[in-house]
Amino acid sequence: MASDRPDVSLADFQQLIRTMYYEKDIARGVDGTFMWLMEEVGELAAALRQGQHQDQLEEFADVLAWLATIANVAGVDLSEAVQRKYGSGCPGCGQLVCVCPNEGKP
Amino acid sequence: MASDRPDVSLADFQQLIRTMYYEKDIARGVDGTFMWLMEEVGELAAALRQGQHQDQLEEFADVLAWLATIANVAGVDLSEAVQRKYGSGCPGCGQLVCVCPNEGKP
Repeated sequence: MASDRPDVSLADFQQLIRTMYYEKDIARGVDGTFMWLMEEVGELAAALRQGQHQDQLEEFADVLAWLATIANVAGVDLSEAVQRKYGSGCPGCGQLVCVCPNEGKP
Repeated sequence: MASDRPDVSLADFQQLIRTMYYEKDIARGVDGTFMWLMEEVGELAAALRQGQHQDQLEEFADVLAWLATIANVAGVDLSEAVQRKYGSGCPGCGQLVCVCPNEGKP
């Protein structure tokens, strides 16, 4: 997981995608954009099954980009979303290292 | 999109999910984890169609969490991924504000 690049924040990434694509995104709307997300999820599945590391990097980036696009159109702040749900530990057990029983979420 | 919370970096979020769930995640593997991602993508679709803003926040967070989980299992750095693909502008036209023709990617 090592990288010599500076880290990127979720808010900055969402804003970057907004700057790049918002005019197209808002015209396409949530429903049409969701179709693009699904296409990229399929490509991610293919890259995970049989792709090289470079392919997997690209497909993860595309899924994140389309997710950010939908969030932009829906008016959802991804950074706020993850901090609310995961910022205080596992939503199931409340622990930083999850101790939820396996029958609940293995 | 305003939030009074501090921003969260993609690397920190991926590491948080790793700390919380990595033992379970590595035991489940990529294939089993992908099924969980798909379940959450379905819940996101439902929240976008008929959910309240709070539901949408939760479902975006869950999709991001399962995506981070798969990236952890596959050994992919999400921060590196988005910086490589989107850090120098739109991958299609190279511009910060995309000018790709609509017939290519509307």
